[in-house]
Amino acid sequence: MVQSKLRTPLPSPVELITKKRDGHALDAQEIAGLVSGYLAEKITDYQMSAWLMAAFLRGMTPSETLALTRAMLESGDVLELKSVKLPKVDKHSTGGVGDKVSLCLGPSVAACGVAVPMISGRGLGHTGGTLDKLEAIPGYQTRLDPHRFERVVREVGVSIIGQSERLAPADRRIYALRDVTGTVESIPLIVASILSKKLAAGLDGLVLDVKTGRGAFMPDVDSARALGRALVQVAEAAGMPVTALLTRMDAPIGRTVGNALETREAIEVLGGEGPADTRELTLELGVEMLLLARAFKRREPARKSLERALASGAALERFRRMVEAHGGDPRVIDQPARLPRAPRRLPVLAPRSGVVTAIDARELGWVSVLLGAGRTRADQKVDPAVGIELLVRPGQQVEAREPLAFLHVRRSADGARQLARTLGAFRLGSKRPKEAPLILERVRGG
Amino acid sequence: MVQSKLRTPLPSPVELITKKRDGHALDAQEIAGLVSGYLAEKITDYQMSAWLMAAFLRGMTPSETLALTRAMLESGDVLELKSVKLPKVDKHSTGGVGDKVSLCLGPSVAACGVAVPMISGRGLGHTGGTLDKLEAIPGYQTRLDPHRFERVVREVGVSIIGQSERLAPADRRIYALRDVTGTVESIPLIVASILSKKLAAGLDGLVLDVKTGRGAFMPDVDSARALGRALVQVAEAAGMPVTALLTRMDAPIGRTVGNALETREAIEVLGGEGPADTRELTLELGVEMLLLARAFKRREPARKSLERALASGAALERFRRMVEAHGGDPRVIDQPARLPRAPRRLPVLAPRSGVVTAIDARELGWVSVLLGAGRTRADQKVDPAVGIELLVRPGQQVEAREPLAFLHVRRSADGARQLARTLGAFRLGSKRPKEAPLILERVRGG
Repeated sequence: MVQSKLRTPLPSPVELITKKRDGHALDAQEIAGLVSGYLAEKITDYQMSAWLMAAFLRGMTPSETLALTRAMLESGDVLELKSVKLPKVDKHSTGGVGDKVSLCLGPSVAACGVAVPMISGRGLGHTGGTLDKLEAIPGYQTRLDPHRFERVVREVGVSIIGQSERLAPADRRIYALRDVTGTVESIPLIVASILSKKLAAGLDGLVLDVKTGRGAFMPDVDSARALGRALVQVAEAAGMPVTALLTRMDAPIGRTVGNALETREAIEVLGGEGPADTRELTLELGVEMLLLARAFKRREPARKSLERALASGAALERFRRMVEAHGGDPRVIDQPARLPRAPRRLPVLAPRSGVVTAIDARELGWVSVLLGAGRTRADQKVDPAVGIELLVRPGQQVEAREPLAFLHVRRSADGARQLARTLGAFRLGSKRPKEAPLILERVRGG
Repeated sequence: MVQSKLRTPLPSPVELITKKRDGHALDAQEIAGLVSGYLAEKITDYQMSAWLMAAFLRGMTPSETLALTRAMLESGDVLELKSVKLPKVDKHSTGGVGDKVSLCLGPSVAACGVAVPMISGRGLGHTGGTLDKLEAIPGYQTRLDPHRFERVVREVGVSIIGQSERLAPADRRIYALRDVTGTVESIPLIVASILSKKLAAGLDGLVLDVKTGRGAFMPDVDSARALGRALVQVAEAAGMPVTALLTRMDAPIGRTVGNALETREAIEVLGGEGPADTRELTLELGVEMLLLARAFKRREPARKSLERALASGAALERFRRMVEAHGGDPRVIDQPARLPRAPRRLPVLAPRSGVVTAIDARELGWVSVLLGAGRTRADQKVDPAVGIELLVRPGQQVEAREPLAFLHVRRSADGARQLARTLGAFRLGSKRPKEAPLILERVRGG
């Protein structure tokens, strides 16, 4: 109903909404106008949320997703990290439970001669966040100004920080709006959100860990693969070399869920020990990062190099220097007892004997959140000490009344409230389950 | 990602959005919670607009539409008009160009012994509004308090007013939001908006004029029929007797487009004269109203009664008394020159000879709006005097340089700017077009 004579060169907010609503693709200029108009408050929250819902239900073409990625990227600062002469590679995971791999991976890859300028996030829903885990180390600062970040990457080879206000501010605002308007679980919107931040971080390559299974945001493998494909396709179109692995997220990774507990496990892995799956995921993702950075041409030498970094203490040494550079207390590395510890440990006992056939990562993720390790509202503080320590793995035989896990809690009552739910996360059967591979496949562009 | 323990008895705003987004129907309690939560500002504009877009694209079941209608109806006052002992029937049109039928119909039906408490609207987009037309009469007040409205209906048999702030306020707020978020053209949302107001007006029956064709909001006949069906179905489910006619809206109705011009034409029809199509539509819709009110059992005597009311002056007398009761100057009825008149009249000349094969109501609607008879922004005032006077009808032979229409304008320059567009609304051909019936069909519930 807008008369042609009154049309401005750029379509009005309502025209941008109805175009998407009716299933048409917006061109790059229109997408850029949408994002800049939103930041300039010419497009209101209620118009943007209507547009986002239309995009959610109608989908977006790869060109539109790329345009949205670029528009969000260009809404803020772009890091160049010019003084870092090494190739710069990062990893992004779509979110898991017990996934402390970033803490292991950054220092290990740095020890193999590739810089890792890592911009991480906080826990979301039932999943944990790397920043929350690092902040379990007394003094560790996850906010560095860009110059200091660049210096730490240059001098230590790895720095893990949070997203600054100035990096892709449009993504920050749009994400906050999606969170309260039921428009989170859209592949193109997820892709644009992830890649806008990564493209702003001055990287030479990006490894994507796309998780699937009970504990992942995209439980079914087809959706996860579609997300992986879209990520690869749009990243490549934007000129960013990427590798995406589809990995299993059914049981928690490793033996711990919760911030200080996971940091402690990461330190073990960095020292050449720790649970096999955490170590394996670190090595596999690390190999991809080293290959993408062209530090190695073949998988075996890359893997050997990472194994050496873990065995020799070189990876742990990088971690120590990173913690120091971020103001953290490096003594936690040799004296893990200096990490925050919960005052109480509640055993979760097997009700009967049997084989552990499954451990539900999503349920344990929520238990950990409700113990205080995560947030149910954005303004909550996390308790670094609390969480879950797993004593068994899928496939393991247990006897009746044998402890399956410990809940690390602030007050016994907190744990008591979560006991039934924790127990419900363990499935006991009579037959050993088939062992599922941790890494399902490498994802190609869609 | 909301944990069951934290769930409140009513779903959260995000849950209401995602439920609709994923194609599920909300129950009546959830719809009521949505509307009351929105009015109480527990649900924000951006959440409601996301919900509306999800409803637009996913559709709504008849039960959901009924629940939304009821929730909006119950958000405000409900008129009872208990002191009006006659049956009370109203008509609602989905919006047309040159459609002054409400002005003719209310007094005519009242003259046949059925009360018409009519709540009308203003011009929207390219279409005109009954209130704007009535306000062309000096002094006419379209805002009466409920008691005075009831008294006028009781004493005169007809009163035409605007929607008060207290009638279906939820519809008012939601409509304003839809208008700026690309969620207007949704059948269930349109149905709920129309019926919530009509159900709040204490009616015994409602006749719906569902327009289709170039000049209608639903140009294609299938969409218009679907709208008509949904209106009938939901009105019947709400216990309101309804009749819906599907009517053609290709060329403007009658000879005039613009407020005072249309009021003048309505006075002609009320006096037993005026253009055949305006009169015919008045009679046909009037018959439906009289039948619905059970004032007549058969069509022919009902039509005869209306024809007598027009021929005898009884209908015009009701109009005069209504104008007086609303504070308007009744002298305009015998002296139409007292209606506002535009200072200039610009002829629109036929470029060549031929048969008028079509007159585009939508285009002429926009010309009229741009001359000042309507609004392109909600805060604009309308000019009662300006508009278009048609001198030809489809099917008529014209000679080159014969005037097709007059533009009634404030300044010659205003008209000059619209001349080309006006001319473009007239199609000239060599063959007389097939005459299309004004009334296409009676719509049954879907």
